[in-house]
Amino acid sequence: MTKFVYKFTEGNADMRNLLGGKGANLAEMTRIGLPVPPGIIVTTEACLAFYQQGEQFPDGLEDQIRQGIQYLEQTMGKKFGDVSDPLLVSVRSGAPISMPGMMDTILNLGLTDKSVQGLADKTGNERFAYDCYRRFIQMFGDVAMKIPGEKFEQALTDLKAAKGVKLDTDLTAEDLKELVQQFKAIYQEHVGDSFPEDPYDQLLAAVHAVFASWNNERAKVYRRLNKIPDDLGTAVNIQTMVFGNMGQTSGTGVAFTRNPATGENVLYGEYLINAQGEDVVAGIRTPEPIAHLKDEFPAVYDEFHRVAELLEDHYRDLQDIEFTVQEGKLYILQTRSGKRTAAAAVKVAVDMVREGKISREEALLRIDPAQLVQLMHRRIDPEAQVEVLATGLPASPGAATGKVVFSADEAEVRGNNGEAVILVRTETTPDDIHGLVPARGVLTSRGGMTSHAAVVARGMGKPAVCGCEAIKIDAENECFTVDNITVKKDDIITIDGATGRVMLGAVPMIEPELTGDFETILAWADEIRTLGVRANADTPRDATQARNFGATGIGLCRTEHMFMEPSRLPIVQEMILAGTPEGRREFLAKLLPIQEEDFYGILKAMAGYPVTIRLLDPPLHEFLPKIEDLLVEITELRVTKKDPARLSQLQELLRKVRALAEFNPMLGHRGCRLGVTFPDVYEMQAQAIFNAVSRLVKEGVEVYPEIMIPLVGIPAELELMREVVVRVAEETKQREKVDFEYKVGTMIELPRACLVADKIAAHADFFSFGTNDLTQTTFGFSRDDAEGKFLPTYIDQKILKENPFAVLDQEGMGQLIALAVQKGRSANSELHIGICGEHGGDPESIDFCHRTGFDYVSCSPFRVPVARLAAARAELKNRKK
Amino acid sequence: MTKFVYKFTEGNADMRNLLGGKGANLAEMTRIGLPVPPGIIVTTEACLAFYQQGEQFPDGLEDQIRQGIQYLEQTMGKKFGDVSDPLLVSVRSGAPISMPGMMDTILNLGLTDKSVQGLADKTGNERFAYDCYRRFIQMFGDVAMKIPGEKFEQALTDLKAAKGVKLDTDLTAEDLKELVQQFKAIYQEHVGDSFPEDPYDQLLAAVHAVFASWNNERAKVYRRLNKIPDDLGTAVNIQTMVFGNMGQTSGTGVAFTRNPATGENVLYGEYLINAQGEDVVAGIRTPEPIAHLKDEFPAVYDEFHRVAELLEDHYRDLQDIEFTVQEGKLYILQTRSGKRTAAAAVKVAVDMVREGKISREEALLRIDPAQLVQLMHRRIDPEAQVEVLATGLPASPGAATGKVVFSADEAEVRGNNGEAVILVRTETTPDDIHGLVPARGVLTSRGGMTSHAAVVARGMGKPAVCGCEAIKIDAENECFTVDNITVKKDDIITIDGATGRVMLGAVPMIEPELTGDFETILAWADEIRTLGVRANADTPRDATQARNFGATGIGLCRTEHMFMEPSRLPIVQEMILAGTPEGRREFLAKLLPIQEEDFYGILKAMAGYPVTIRLLDPPLHEFLPKIEDLLVEITELRVTKKDPARLSQLQELLRKVRALAEFNPMLGHRGCRLGVTFPDVYEMQAQAIFNAVSRLVKEGVEVYPEIMIPLVGIPAELELMREVVVRVAEETKQREKVDFEYKVGTMIELPRACLVADKIAAHADFFSFGTNDLTQTTFGFSRDDAEGKFLPTYIDQKILKENPFAVLDQEGMGQLIALAVQKGRSANSELHIGICGEHGGDPESIDFCHRTGFDYVSCSPFRVPVARLAAARAELKNRKK
Repeated sequence: MTKFVYKFTEGNADMRNLLGGKGANLAEMTRIGLPVPPGIIVTTEACLAFYQQGEQFPDGLEDQIRQGIQYLEQTMGKKFGDVSDPLLVSVRSGAPISMPGMMDTILNLGLTDKSVQGLADKTGNERFAYDCYRRFIQMFGDVAMKIPGEKFEQALTDLKAAKGVKLDTDLTAEDLKELVQQFKAIYQEHVGDSFPEDPYDQLLAAVHAVFASWNNERAKVYRRLNKIPDDLGTAVNIQTMVFGNMGQTSGTGVAFTRNPATGENVLYGEYLINAQGEDVVAGIRTPEPIAHLKDEFPAVYDEFHRVAELLEDHYRDLQDIEFTVQEGKLYILQTRSGKRTAAAAVKVAVDMVREGKISREEALLRIDPAQLVQLMHRRIDPEAQVEVLATGLPASPGAATGKVVFSADEAEVRGNNGEAVILVRTETTPDDIHGLVPARGVLTSRGGMTSHAAVVARGMGKPAVCGCEAIKIDAENECFTVDNITVKKDDIITIDGATGRVMLGAVPMIEPELTGDFETILAWADEIRTLGVRANADTPRDATQARNFGATGIGLCRTEHMFMEPSRLPIVQEMILAGTPEGRREFLAKLLPIQEEDFYGILKAMAGYPVTIRLLDPPLHEFLPKIEDLLVEITELRVTKKDPARLSQLQELLRKVRALAEFNPMLGHRGCRLGVTFPDVYEMQAQAIFNAVSRLVKEGVEVYPEIMIPLVGIPAELELMREVVVRVAEETKQREKVDFEYKVGTMIELPRACLVADKIAAHADFFSFGTNDLTQTTFGFSRDDAEGKFLPTYIDQKILKENPFAVLDQEGMGQLIALAVQKGRSANSELHIGICGEHGGDPESIDFCHRTGFDYVSCSPFRVPVARLAAARAELKNRKK
Repeated sequence: MTKFVYKFTEGNADMRNLLGGKGANLAEMTRIGLPVPPGIIVTTEACLAFYQQGEQFPDGLEDQIRQGIQYLEQTMGKKFGDVSDPLLVSVRSGAPISMPGMMDTILNLGLTDKSVQGLADKTGNERFAYDCYRRFIQMFGDVAMKIPGEKFEQALTDLKAAKGVKLDTDLTAEDLKELVQQFKAIYQEHVGDSFPEDPYDQLLAAVHAVFASWNNERAKVYRRLNKIPDDLGTAVNIQTMVFGNMGQTSGTGVAFTRNPATGENVLYGEYLINAQGEDVVAGIRTPEPIAHLKDEFPAVYDEFHRVAELLEDHYRDLQDIEFTVQEGKLYILQTRSGKRTAAAAVKVAVDMVREGKISREEALLRIDPAQLVQLMHRRIDPEAQVEVLATGLPASPGAATGKVVFSADEAEVRGNNGEAVILVRTETTPDDIHGLVPARGVLTSRGGMTSHAAVVARGMGKPAVCGCEAIKIDAENECFTVDNITVKKDDIITIDGATGRVMLGAVPMIEPELTGDFETILAWADEIRTLGVRANADTPRDATQARNFGATGIGLCRTEHMFMEPSRLPIVQEMILAGTPEGRREFLAKLLPIQEEDFYGILKAMAGYPVTIRLLDPPLHEFLPKIEDLLVEITELRVTKKDPARLSQLQELLRKVRALAEFNPMLGHRGCRLGVTFPDVYEMQAQAIFNAVSRLVKEGVEVYPEIMIPLVGIPAELELMREVVVRVAEETKQREKVDFEYKVGTMIELPRACLVADKIAAHADFFSFGTNDLTQTTFGFSRDDAEGKFLPTYIDQKILKENPFAVLDQEGMGQLIALAVQKGRSANSELHIGICGEHGGDPESIDFCHRTGFDYVSCSPFRVPVARLAAARAELKNRKK
């Protein structure tokens, strides 16, 4: 027979998988002699068995629970359901991983019409007994029987009104007896049966309810959001009741050993006199700050303070403690590691190292790197009450408030005049860049996480909400609507790029803080980590920012954004439309000095560090006018018969643009395929790079250019393109009479590249995994389409645990990456390996990169601190194993 | 010192890699005692060394050649360049793999101003000697020195005119002496140096020219087209000359041991009296059929007949023999396996088995399966003179002649009236199906091998040339132009879907023949092969055809073409635009009985065999009107302000169509992603299948439906969709009170599916590799874009050896497939594995499938015989190893 029920005295802190976090902690506290009311724990195994048997208790569970109650009866010298001195218990859930607020609790279980009288007699406090009873009926009805809580609340409110009192505590014993009758009637009405008078019936129903609550919607959502597996199950803690509501020398509270918002080392929390725990959480009465306890009950405060220190020392972490005082005696009901803000996490970790309580390594493992992003951007004050108008994709973190404008031109003029504007567009194009730069943020109704707006905004560290399909933009009338709300030009909105929320009006903000402790933590991380951290940056400004955040190189400098600047776009368009090498020559010659300045700037900003420059990657038609726009204009001209010259010009342009159009641009004529078919374009870019390098070398600046060929899937592609780059480099050395180092490598972003990585590595100095495109091709997901169309359903239905564009798919794509690393290194032991997809900034993915033998990760500048910490944690976690 | 030169007496037939095919055969024939003029062979290794050293002779080669000539001098009792009795030699190329017409030959080498007199004296025939000399100068000048051949031809023509004679043979010795002087002057003029008077200089230059010809353009193109590696090199055969031009008892000819066009077992060939070999090939004089030799020189004929039989018996295959008769004596100059038509290949193989010359297995290995396609379609008579107007993609094999029409409606009306029409469109859409059906063929200027036109045409077995970008269609004026040629409506054109050629007017055709020998060969193949062969078919008609061609099942029945029929499309469109499950219900109910009839028909046509039905795969917007068309109409209505009701209707439609539009449809909301988000659509299809199955079972028809879920990349996708199918099947069994078997499986067409194949296999009865999509995602190539844009460059530049959409990429994608097979079977040993991509009809790819442990291949009906033979050959080849 499986042992499904443990006494607190039989457990310890290591048994959290079996006993749940709360149960294991209660057992541990019992073990170290803290004043914990005795109890028993129904194991998570019982919960799993319950689900395996179609929501039925497994054999033996009921008997073991009865035996457990008998043990409590013996220990406490009370009887369950006793008419004179009844044993009362609380029933609480407790999963192996803390899920606060997710699971339901029942207190005062064991009260019946008979035993309530026993409780009244024993305590000499009839009012207290009936208060317990009515609370119990209310919680049992709500939690176990799903009776809407407001039914009971309404009855209570009505009664107080009828009696002319304001506070619950003003109600008399007689009032509460009346309330019990009303509550029972509510129960009978909803359940269709009378309230159970056998305490074992109550207990078994309560255990059933806790088990069932493991799969309530809130719990499922919480697990999904927090990546907690569904097959852990919950334990049930059945604990002897203590009462914070036995009068003015009783009370209950919750406290943190340190301030969980700031990390300051003072007790932080609150308590209520003459109340049970639920009253604190429910916020019905306003609790007192814990400091007041010192004045009201100094002995209790001192005892609690001692216990709090003991618990923090014992668990070596900030603790979140629930306690109850019953007639002057302190009981500890729960302790757990306290949730904290990023700022607090950093400060607590650094302080505890300074206090000698934990090591630097432990400090690093205590801070969730993903949380650090909180510290890197302006953000909405979490305390603020906000009303969300619509929600789009969280395309680029940070929050911004400003006046709505609908054109890039207007955003440019007004933004440059110092006005705070938010650019709102259906989607953005390269033509909008001049408006994006001075805007505070951007909101689009179409496009995914890699849409133009999203990519550009992330590159600029500018807040963006994209693909917000709920807003209907009427550009002509300069307004947008959400349902029946219309937002006009100059109306103020706030966007939160971290959550995708769009709000009307201004909202309180918190500015980013880079405290000394933050710097300290990152310095410790740098000492430990073996993975390099670079940044993805396309401009000298971004590069400088990345460097300030601790990046030691650029892992991806995209050259196409340089092509898209409005002043250059016409030259680029003419080059593309030229169609022949001869026709292109003139425009390439114009672009050469411009690109040279681009590279000069970024290489100089990153002096002393490597800069990986990716040659032109997107399909050429991305730089051209849209077919749809041309069609509309052509049709207008055709119908109105105005300006036939322009019509025929546009028709010719349409023909050329059509010839370059593609069915699936993502899989089309782009990347090194451009380099193979238009080697002159790559040659120009290589020349621009090496011209810049030569100038910098002559100026005494240390530069390490790394030329990256995109979208290689066939070894000969890299071989050919490498020849072009090497030839230009060597010619430049000769012509300019300088010497410099450089590397030539490739992005690994196609499944085939992984499969033939050994043959590719023969021509590569480095591999940089382009995991955005590799995810697209491995899954066959077009990111722009998937995130708007079916990925949300996939996550909801748990077909996928998480968005593979955010968290690297280790199960599938990870196999390809590991294969490529192994094959690449087998052919070229000097091969330098990194990642420059967005996964390079995701902690889980960084852990994978570390384990797979990468040399570095590269991510957006604002993610660099996250990556530094995550890299150190990866080293520590894998060192352990 | 490497041995670079072999005597004929030192070699044999097994040495073809070293001595080339021709050299090895000459050595072999020498070895078995045939009358072969003595000679020496410069090895392929010498050629490779020549290229390794930058087109320089390797050390020792010249000495070895000189020693070889000394050996010939001793053997023949003549001296090289001798003034009285000179040794003359021919110099011919000879690669390990026959490359007819690709390499250049020089005859009569050794003649100089001095030795020509010796030849004249020795033969007593001055005219003959100078004829040899002038031929030698001509060939040497042409082949070794690249002097344009027409220069010499012109001088010869001019001389004949001046002398008033018609035939070369009418020229006198004196005339020829004059011609020699003129030829030398031409030589001097072009080369800038006088004609070499040292025979060794001549010989070394000739060897150099042969080596160089290995890399001439013709040779490179031939190798590419015939998949011959570039690193084999060519040998050089230096052989004592015999003379077919020594008078009326001399001659030269080429003959096959059997008719290479029909396979008939009679000597087939031709000869010329008083001529050298080049005269036959060049077609300057019309040669006599070989049968005439019997009358003119019965002894020679008998001798040749004996040798021909001996050679065929020796090599056990149809031989292509070159011979020369010098003053009544027969010499054999070359023998090789004879090229033959598919029909001949089949007949010769079957006959030789009947004659006991070869085994059935050898017979199967003698026939190139790819060639069999020739027998399956109407084709252009290879003898016909055709003028090619333009060339597009060979999208669907077969040839068709008809009048050009530019609209599907017109094609429908006129085609159904029995007119032969070719539908010419920029591209086709589902709306054009009604015009495609009665058209003889289709020609499009856009789209690749998987464009709508191509796929539909292949499915129908109808000729198609697609993506023929050279033709500019002006639909409005009903004409198209190619350069300056305009083709109007009703003009007759011919298209050749096997080569992509478009020709003006009608062209002679050959009808497909399925002879008894063909059947015999396929029956032998069936006995040997272990791979099953199924067909891809969407209609009962296609299924029946496939069955007639020997398919034992349907490997892919696409259901989307059923949706695209014009009568159904409006229902499908309404269903899609409904947007909600409730809205869809009505239209799904309408589609259900229609789909049921579809499945009833195809299952019945394939009674007794499995039919794999793929549930809906393409993105929904493929069924909707095009955004561009809507935009044009909306703009027109907007500008003209006519019909505002229709305008707002169209604007609403545009909004819905836009909402469903995708950036990369290939990677978008399609396949099982539709099934997950719109389970009601898959449910309807499953219901239609099982309704049809139930009816057939009740009628006593044996059916084996296999339901295939497309585009699975995540195990849970298949798990969910399988649940839907199984539920519908079981409900149907209960409701209809019937029992039937069915399988549920998936297409493996995404890299991730291969990587997690073990987990997918847990929910699959079968895997069918969709190698079209798998190629797209593995390479990151959109086929529709790649084939028009960069793949041709990739093949030309040898970045890829072949189009991966035609021949399965074993190097890269093959790894994924092998992994998936291994993982799939490890998790589910009963897993049935097939392929339904187009590679399923390609012999090389079929060999791969055989080796990788597939159970079957599936291909278009017309490829079924190819696949049956290829499967047998795969078994035989791999049995050997």
